[in-house]
Amino acid sequence: MDLDDLQLVDHHVHGAVKEPLDRAGFEKLITESDRPVPAWMSTFDSQLGLAIRRHCAPLLGLEPHASADDYLAARAEQDVNRLFLGAAGVSDYLVDTGHLADSLTDVDELAKLSGSRAHEVVRLEAELEYVASQESDVAAVPDALVGRLEERTAGAVGLKSIVAYRYGFDFDPAEPSAGDVRASLDRWYATGAKRVTDPVLLRWLLWTGARRGLPLQLHVGLGDTDLQLHRVNPALLTEWLRLVEPLGTQVVLLHCYSYHREAGYLAHVFPHVHLDLGLTTMYVGARAPAVLAEGLELAPFAKLLYSSDAWGPAELHYLGATLWRRAATSVLDTFVQQGDWSAEDAARVARMWGRDNAVRLYGLDQR
Amino acid sequence: MDLDDLQLVDHHVHGAVKEPLDRAGFEKLITESDRPVPAWMSTFDSQLGLAIRRHCAPLLGLEPHASADDYLAARAEQDVNRLFLGAAGVSDYLVDTGHLADSLTDVDELAKLSGSRAHEVVRLEAELEYVASQESDVAAVPDALVGRLEERTAGAVGLKSIVAYRYGFDFDPAEPSAGDVRASLDRWYATGAKRVTDPVLLRWLLWTGARRGLPLQLHVGLGDTDLQLHRVNPALLTEWLRLVEPLGTQVVLLHCYSYHREAGYLAHVFPHVHLDLGLTTMYVGARAPAVLAEGLELAPFAKLLYSSDAWGPAELHYLGATLWRRAATSVLDTFVQQGDWSAEDAARVARMWGRDNAVRLYGLDQR
Amino acid sequence: MDLDDLQLVDHHVHGAVKEPLDRAGFEKLITESDRPVPAWMSTFDSQLGLAIRRHCAPLLGLEPHASADDYLAARAEQDVNRLFLGAAGVSDYLVDTGHLADSLTDVDELAKLSGSRAHEVVRLEAELEYVASQESDVAAVPDALVGRLEERTAGAVGLKSIVAYRYGFDFDPAEPSAGDVRASLDRWYATGAKRVTDPVLLRWLLWTGARRGLPLQLHVGLGDTDLQLHRVNPALLTEWLRLVEPLGTQVVLLHCYSYHREAGYLAHVFPHVHLDLGLTTMYVGARAPAVLAEGLELAPFAKLLYSSDAWGPAELHYLGATLWRRAATSVLDTFVQQGDWSAEDAARVARMWGRDNAVRLYGLDQR
Repeated sequence: MDLDDLQLVDHHVHGAVKEPLDRAGFEKLITESDRPVPAWMSTFDSQLGLAIRRHCAPLLGLEPHASADDYLAARAEQDVNRLFLGAAGVSDYLVDTGHLADSLTDVDELAKLSGSRAHEVVRLEAELEYVASQESDVAAVPDALVGRLEERTAGAVGLKSIVAYRYGFDFDPAEPSAGDVRASLDRWYATGAKRVTDPVLLRWLLWTGARRGLPLQLHVGLGDTDLQLHRVNPALLTEWLRLVEPLGTQVVLLHCYSYHREAGYLAHVFPHVHLDLGLTTMYVGARAPAVLAEGLELAPFAKLLYSSDAWGPAELHYLGATLWRRAATSVLDTFVQQGDWSAEDAARVARMWGRDNAVRLYGLDQR
Repeated sequence: MDLDDLQLVDHHVHGAVKEPLDRAGFEKLITESDRPVPAWMSTFDSQLGLAIRRHCAPLLGLEPHASADDYLAARAEQDVNRLFLGAAGVSDYLVDTGHLADSLTDVDELAKLSGSRAHEVVRLEAELEYVASQESDVAAVPDALVGRLEERTAGAVGLKSIVAYRYGFDFDPAEPSAGDVRASLDRWYATGAKRVTDPVLLRWLLWTGARRGLPLQLHVGLGDTDLQLHRVNPALLTEWLRLVEPLGTQVVLLHCYSYHREAGYLAHVFPHVHLDLGLTTMYVGARAPAVLAEGLELAPFAKLLYSSDAWGPAELHYLGATLWRRAATSVLDTFVQQGDWSAEDAARVARMWGRDNAVRLYGLDQR
Repeated sequence: MDLDDLQLVDHHVHGAVKEPLDRAGFEKLITESDRPVPAWMSTFDSQLGLAIRRHCAPLLGLEPHASADDYLAARAEQDVNRLFLGAAGVSDYLVDTGHLADSLTDVDELAKLSGSRAHEVVRLEAELEYVASQESDVAAVPDALVGRLEERTAGAVGLKSIVAYRYGFDFDPAEPSAGDVRASLDRWYATGAKRVTDPVLLRWLLWTGARRGLPLQLHVGLGDTDLQLHRVNPALLTEWLRLVEPLGTQVVLLHCYSYHREAGYLAHVFPHVHLDLGLTTMYVGARAPAVLAEGLELAPFAKLLYSSDAWGPAELHYLGATLWRRAATSVLDTFVQQGDWSAEDAARVARMWGRDNAVRLYGLDQR
């Protein structure tokens, strides 16, 4: 199977970094850790680091597996954003603009550099924090939030929640009462904190987001040191998924490692649950076929999506797509070679996974 | 290794559906979801759906990978129950009769259609609910339950619990006092509910079942939307397993996905714990070798059992056996090819897993 | 890739049993279960049992896959400790002397029999229990513990905690106050119990250990019936890891099955977290390549360590090394064959994993 010509929809991605990067700066951006890299190690000595040296070096005119120093020297000579974004084979980027966006290309720049279409995904927590920064009257916040979301999602394709980072999934699943929300807003305003971390406010945001009707993306599983991995097992969302199911909103579980099998189970039993293995695919590098295969156990094939979750170096936008194509080819070809699937079904599932499901879910053919 | 001639013991199965099935009806029965199938997807687009088209189509005279419509048209022309049950290569079915049994073949019909022996496994929750439906005096329920189980298990080979669906495994592991049971029965009777969901009653049932001495099967892991996956991790049963160990009752963990490694660990350290990967094997289709292999990491080989957990279309009774034979062959041959196992040991472990362990555990050679 | 000549550092191991072993005695030592082996099974029918018959038999002059009886008969004729310890290809053993050490070779004997260097790892719980056995005045215990640890670690390379066995990782992560420690010591002394199981004392030990500055090893994941597997998921340590991070102490997660992916995540995001798959590698036998590969997904390669965690039969000291070499070769060669890694990087990562990382972490080049 050859997926080189399949134009992907990267349904969850961020911008590319605009400034040049030295070795220390680059090393900081190829790890999920937010800590300084210890002097006795290099983040190039990781699956992602080796994948960059293997798969990105040839685009810079280097041999595969070029050394990190040679790689970074060649990188500094080129317009890497245009190079890697142009080579990813992605027709549509769905861009989460809610995380440190000032240092990154915005939606329009990403479209221009890549020659692809780019659409916005609006991050719920960032919008509540924006509203709070503008609105001194606590009582006005609920209406202001609804208004802000209406305005911000007018041209957007989806919403995103990072409750995983801010609290975890072990929250009370019921929609909070107006009184509880008001009390929590009062407490939050009293602290003067910018970040929203109160579980009542976070689940109010989730419910408010679910009521918008747009597909709602949730960060699930691996991330940085802010989260506790066992508290972002998506199975913890089961009761919340049951409660929002009548709203008709589609929920997308992102990344999911090491709980991608649990995510596949949820996509199997709940009609409104979808998943991807973005971020994961990139970080596990040579292990991507093994991990993606686990995602193809219980999940109905109409529920699978592709994303890179790239943030920062444009290598990641390219690498997400490249590793997904290699891994999906490997996994699906194996099913065919085992005598279990037909080649036609394998090719069809690859198209659903890499493109068609996202076009349907986000209505991209009507844009 | 060729396991075609190994007559399996399917130690946990249900009846086959008696009525003809149209496409919508068939699609509903090849998913664990209890929700309507969304219009934009088909449950044939899943590992199980592709496995049916691949492995069952030839028995209907079709090419492998026949389309779903062709498959269902051919299916409607034949006596599929006799066809698939007869082809499964199963000597003994151990039949859980506790779930919507009216629409399914009963134990005797299953035996007749398959030409195999069939034995009953009695579901604890169904028996308590039956007793409650017959007994208006709450005080009489405990004795009536013991009497009912004695009567129902006279010819049965095992008991089954679905506490996983009704509550989860995070219950107080100790045997409840007579007073606590009475109070919970009073509350249950007062509600008028048919289903038993009270955790005190559920664990009283578990203890009462364990005291019968027959092998006690527990639903573990994947199922429908009624359960919360993280609450049916069998590791949560550890303290309960310690407490019932002195009773000498053998406990069998069924299905187990995505906690089959945890189940293997429990089978490793507790002499009275066994496991299978039924249901799982069928639903993961082409991934069955990978998943079964994970079940062969820590579990002693004398603790492994085979089941299909088929319910509904007779394809599932056949497919459980077929996918197990294919996957077990693949996994065990790999160990031999790696140079780690002898071919003799591989064949011996396959027989233990598919047949001999179940014959010993359920005393099938004395029936 | 050929790792036969790579001299390993086995950074977590115990002594070898000194007495001869009959079949029953040997079977008891090749399982993590502390229960009698049921009459209807043999622990040789397990991944570890088959690995012993395959990989250890040739060293006794037998054919690979010799029967268990032939194996044990040949074993009884030879100086197995010298034989297997000498063949392991290990330059340095780091020996945890805290578990039933009287029946085992001590640090010096292990060095002599193996011809390797041997260094001590001091078990925290054993030291507190020793102090309590010597000190009748409760008020003197905190200072006595600090003094004892100073004395015991003067020549040691690391500390070890078995809080996993004694409680679990779901403890309050904060350092307990002197008053809380004193109250817990009072309660412990009042019970007269030898074993320390109080969570306040266990976490006080962890904090006290972390303050020593030596690498601190934690038992994680699979073990015997004392532990509850879901309570030793290392993700539960996240907040404690955040709190001890400023101390600069390096934390090593041992074994980790079935939570090795969670351990890899922690090693990825926290600079001071390392991991191995000791014990696991041995017990999963022919599945070692598959399990080790999962450990190579998120963990930075500078964080990977080798250990056997052998305890008892010297076969385990040899087998840990042999299965690691085979599995690491298989996994890393696969990455090269897939076209993802260069052969040079694969060889370099193998050396880091099997030797160089441990030399750096424990300062073995300065001893």
